[in-house]
Parts: sequence; structure tokens; C-alpha cells
Amino acid sequence: MKVTVEAPANIAFIKYWGARDLESALPENASVSMTLDHCRARTTVERLPAAGRDEVLLATAGGVLEEAPVAFVAGVRRHLDQLRRWAAVEVPFRVATRNNFPTGAGIASSAAGFAALAIAVAASLERDPDAAELSLLARLSGSGSAARSVMGGYVRWPADDADPASPAVSLAPADHWPLCDLVAVVDTAFKSVSSREGHRRASTSPQFALRQERLGERLAAVGQAIRDRDLERLGPIVEQEAIDLHLIAMSSRPPIFYWRPGTLEVLEAVRQLRARGVGAWFTMDAGPNVHVICGPGDEEAVAAALAGLPRVISLLRDRVGTGPRSIEEHLF
Amino acid sequence: MKVTVEAPANIAFIKYWGARDLESALPENASVSMTLDHCRARTTVERLPAAGRDEVLLATAGGVLEEAPVAFVAGVRRHLDQLRRWAAVEVPFRVATRNNFPTGAGIASSAAGFAALAIAVAASLERDPDAAELSLLARLSGSGSAARSVMGGYVRWPADDADPASPAVSLAPADHWPLCDLVAVVDTAFKSVSSREGHRRASTSPQFALRQERLGERLAAVGQAIRDRDLERLGPIVEQEAIDLHLIAMSSRPPIFYWRPGTLEVLEAVRQLRARGVGAWFTMDAGPNVHVICGPGDEEAVAAALAGLPRVISLLRDRVGTGPRSIEEHLF
Repeated sequence: MKVTVEAPANIAFIKYWGARDLESALPENASVSMTLDHCRARTTVERLPAAGRDEVLLATAGGVLEEAPVAFVAGVRRHLDQLRRWAAVEVPFRVATRNNFPTGAGIASSAAGFAALAIAVAASLERDPDAAELSLLARLSGSGSAARSVMGGYVRWPADDADPASPAVSLAPADHWPLCDLVAVVDTAFKSVSSREGHRRASTSPQFALRQERLGERLAAVGQAIRDRDLERLGPIVEQEAIDLHLIAMSSRPPIFYWRPGTLEVLEAVRQLRARGVGAWFTMDAGPNVHVICGPGDEEAVAAALAGLPRVISLLRDRVGTGPRSIEEHLF
Repeated sequence: MKVTVEAPANIAFIKYWGARDLESALPENASVSMTLDHCRARTTVERLPAAGRDEVLLATAGGVLEEAPVAFVAGVRRHLDQLRRWAAVEVPFRVATRNNFPTGAGIASSAAGFAALAIAVAASLERDPDAAELSLLARLSGSGSAARSVMGGYVRWPADDADPASPAVSLAPADHWPLCDLVAVVDTAFKSVSSREGHRRASTSPQFALRQERLGERLAAVGQAIRDRDLERLGPIVEQEAIDLHLIAMSSRPPIFYWRPGTLEVLEAVRQLRARGVGAWFTMDAGPNVHVICGPGDEEAVAAALAGLPRVISLLRDRVGTGPRSIEEHLF
């Protein structure tokens, strides 16, 4: 029996950067994200009949299935081991996955992929976990932000001191507030330092503790801004969080530099848009590409400004989405 | 009697960033710089016969003398007041100054200009202070780095805890080590936040105290690298200092962002040059432009790489210089 699931990437407004337990993907702090609509991983899972090894395939940009790179295979197998332990089964799987957006460039490809894998494996084992349990299962991959990609709309992942392993929860559904996210791709190369390594080094930065002190206030304000659909309040915090993530990375030991010339080009364009009265705000994950958040009424103006920048290779026009879904179009 | 002095800019290997007394330009820490040869301010000073106000003129890029902007005039008059106090005179001056490089873009235009002013005023009053006293007089302008521009070659400004007001001292003359400095200009706009304001905010950054802890080691290593003419040892420290200055600025409250897309373009080009075996190392002052330090044997390769970058507006080819000089070509 084949199961195919599409799960979306998400863009964090309050970042997960720094882990209290990296193996279990338990973050130091709560995070808040918007689940995307268009940027998705499609994952097909099939239980193999006999005992044996998992097969892990990756679709090329052209749609051809190929043996996945060793590190990718190892990550999927580790996650499959966790999912088998949860389900108390020992069956091997054939897994194929395909992203419709650049991987490894700070667009949460692992969040989308591992959320899809967890949901597809559970379905292929005829289990029916609720969203909270799916969040925990996705997190078992080691990609923490996958815990937020199992549901649509606006999502908070508490990571409370009292219960660091708590699952993500919905703050508001997608139709509560139709925000757009225009992703300006300035570099499609696989990033030189992984998010995992970035989490590991985060606490070596003098910026890290200072940001932690400010997070309580930021989390409260972001939650309120989402409830009130108040982009003027949300935007400055989202930008500050992005700057802080990169300042922490650049001041970690050893330092991590994700910014490229095109990154700053987009940041400048966003500031110029605001000076013209367009309500656009930037954020970035652990990579050089820039997400620009705006309302639907400003989407065309933002897209026109970003698409004209010399170092913007492509522009992904996305928006808040309703979360993962099962589909019938299998990858094999 | 007219006196005209040309004084050079300097590029700091160990930065002055953060002051213990901003009014008196007393830094928090020692700094080390290389005095440049080509980038200079030319300043003509004339004692006016009658009592009255100082006249302050500024040469345009075309060489035409114009009334200087109010803030510029105020800075020059404050410095003239300090110099009059030192000399115990009350004469007014006519002052004109001209830079042969972009001002206010992180190329130490105030260091060059105030060093030239101090030297020219002392000469016009027929005083003959030694280099140490000239360093103190230049610093009285409020531009701390002017204290390093009164002598050539490699200069250390101690700013000891025991004697924060100590003058700059020579580490080595220019002919000890013929290093080049290629300044990639990516932005000629006047910077949005002054160095003075940057110094004021520096201690609000969590990065600031951490850098102070590392400075003793860096100062010793830079001194040794200059004595040994060891660019492989000097380069990494110079780059780390530049990154640290900008990390402190970006994490100050409120933050200061000097980097532009072209800044990162040059940083990437320098890293690529090193990957090809070219011994080039970047540094930056409080602005978007990048100084690239290399030996004379690599100068052509570095110049070719930098001049080909799309966002490099102009390339200033400079090298270590012998310091200020009096000339006969007056500006008025």
C-alpha cells in the first residue's frame, strides 16, 4: 500500500535557534511560524513486503527518482527507526521525496520533508494520530521545525521549561489572516553550515542570552499581533528575530555567515518599499534567502520590486496555507 | 602666513570602537593602524589679522572652495579652540581643506583632516611640537583616529589603563614592510550613523565585552606580525577585528548597519582570492567600503579581481605611507 503526503514548509516569525537537547530536537525557546501553501515536500511511502533495509529515493528537479545522497538516506533511516519504535513494528519502507522549491537554502526543506514522512508512515501503518502526536512524531526526525509543519495557519511550538517536549499548537487557522510570503531566492547552493550545527554553536554567542531575555515579550506581542491581524506590530518583531538569528550565527564560535550580497540587496529593497508606504517586512531562516511578508493588497508591488533586483535568481510567491494533505499522485 | 599640510588617512588593523570618554576621544582600548600614502587631506591654514570668527572652507570634488556645512564648521572651530588653548593664543584662522578620496564613507577622512589641521595650526603659530605632542593635539579634535595619522608607517595608540591619554607611537616605519591597501568603494554616500555615535553605543552590545577580553592577545599578535612582516599571521586577526566592529555595531542599541550588498561582494571576492593562493585580507572601518590588504606581489591580482565586481564603484590603490608633509601648494 502506497501513501503520498504533501507537507508544507513554514517560515518562523519567532525563531528556533539553539537547542537544549540537539539529539531530541528540544529547543531552548518557544517559536511561532506561518505554514506555507506552495512550498511543499511530496513524500511517498510504501511498506516493503520482506524484512530488509529501507530504500530512500530523491526526485531530481526534473522529476527523475535517484538514489539519495548518503547523509540524506541516513537522516531518513534514523527518522524511520523512531517511527517504527513509536508504532512498535519492524517493517522496512520504500520512501521517495520531492520538493518543489530549492533545498538546503534556508526554506525549511527538512521541516516539510520530515513532516510529510511522519504523516505518511503513520498512515501507511494505518495509525491515526492527532495533530499533537504528529507534531511529536515529526520532531523525532531531529528537525525541530518539522514539529510546526504538521498543521496549517499560524503555529506556536511552546517548548516550555515545564514541558520542553510539548507539541506545536495552532494559534489561528490560515483563513484567519491571509498573509503572503514572497521568497527572494539569491542563492540555491546547499548551505555551508547546517542548521543543526548552528543550533549547537548558538549558545557560544554573547548575543544568545540577550535574545532569550527578550523572547517572552516578543512571543506575547507576536501572538497578539496574529490575533489582531496587525502587520505593523508583527513586522518589526519578525525583522528583529531574523537579524538576531544571524547576529548569533555570525558571533558564534566558530562564526557562521549566511548572508550573501543578494541578501542585503533584498533587505534594502524592503526598507525602500516601506519608505514608499508598502507594508512589507523581511525575515530569514538559516540561509541567504529572504522571505518578505506582506498583505495580499501589497503583493504585486512587493513582487515587482523584488523581481527587478539584479541578484534575485527567482521569486517564490507563497502565502499562508492549510497544512499537509494526502494525495493520490504517487512518486513511484 | 599660510601653511599647507597634507596628512594621510590610516586603516586600523586593531580598531578603536568604543570610548571611555567620548568628549576627549579617549578610547576603551589600544589600536594599531597602517598610515596610508595616497588617501590624504590637504589643509591650508592662515592666521587672520584681526579678532573675529574663524573662516572654514571646504573644497568640492572639482577643487572649488565653498563655505563648509554647519556641522563641519562647528567641528573645525571646536578643534581650533582646543589648539588655541594649547598655544595660549586667541587669533582666528582661515582654514580650507580638501580630500582626494570620498569623505564620510569609512575611509578615515576625519583622521586625515584633523591631523592636518593640528599640524598646520602648530606650524602657523611657529610652534614645533614633536610627534607625540602632535598626536595629542590631533586627538583633541574629538576624532580619536586622528591621533594615529600624525606619523607614517605602522602605529600603535596605546590608550593604556594607566594612561588613557597617551599619544600614538611608531611600531615600524613605512619602509619596514611595503604593504598595499586597495580600497574597494561600494558606496560614496555619507554614512547614516557617525563613528562618534557608534562609539557611544558600542558598550550596549553583548559582543563588546567579549572582544575586549580577546584584545590583549590580538594586540600582541599584530605587533609581532608587523615586526616579522608576517601577513599570514596578521591577516586573520585584521579580518576578525573588522567583523567584530560590525557585529558590535549591528548588535548595539539601537543597531547600526553599515554593510551594503557590495560590501559582501568584496568579502566573498577576497575569500575566493585566498582560495586561489593570493594573500589578500579584508578590513573595514565604520562604513560600507572594504580595504583589502596584500603584499606588492599580489597587488595586480587583487586589483583585477576587485575592479571586476559589479558593485565596486571605484578602486583606490594605496599603500603604507611615510606620514604628513608640508607643501607649498596652498588651497587659497
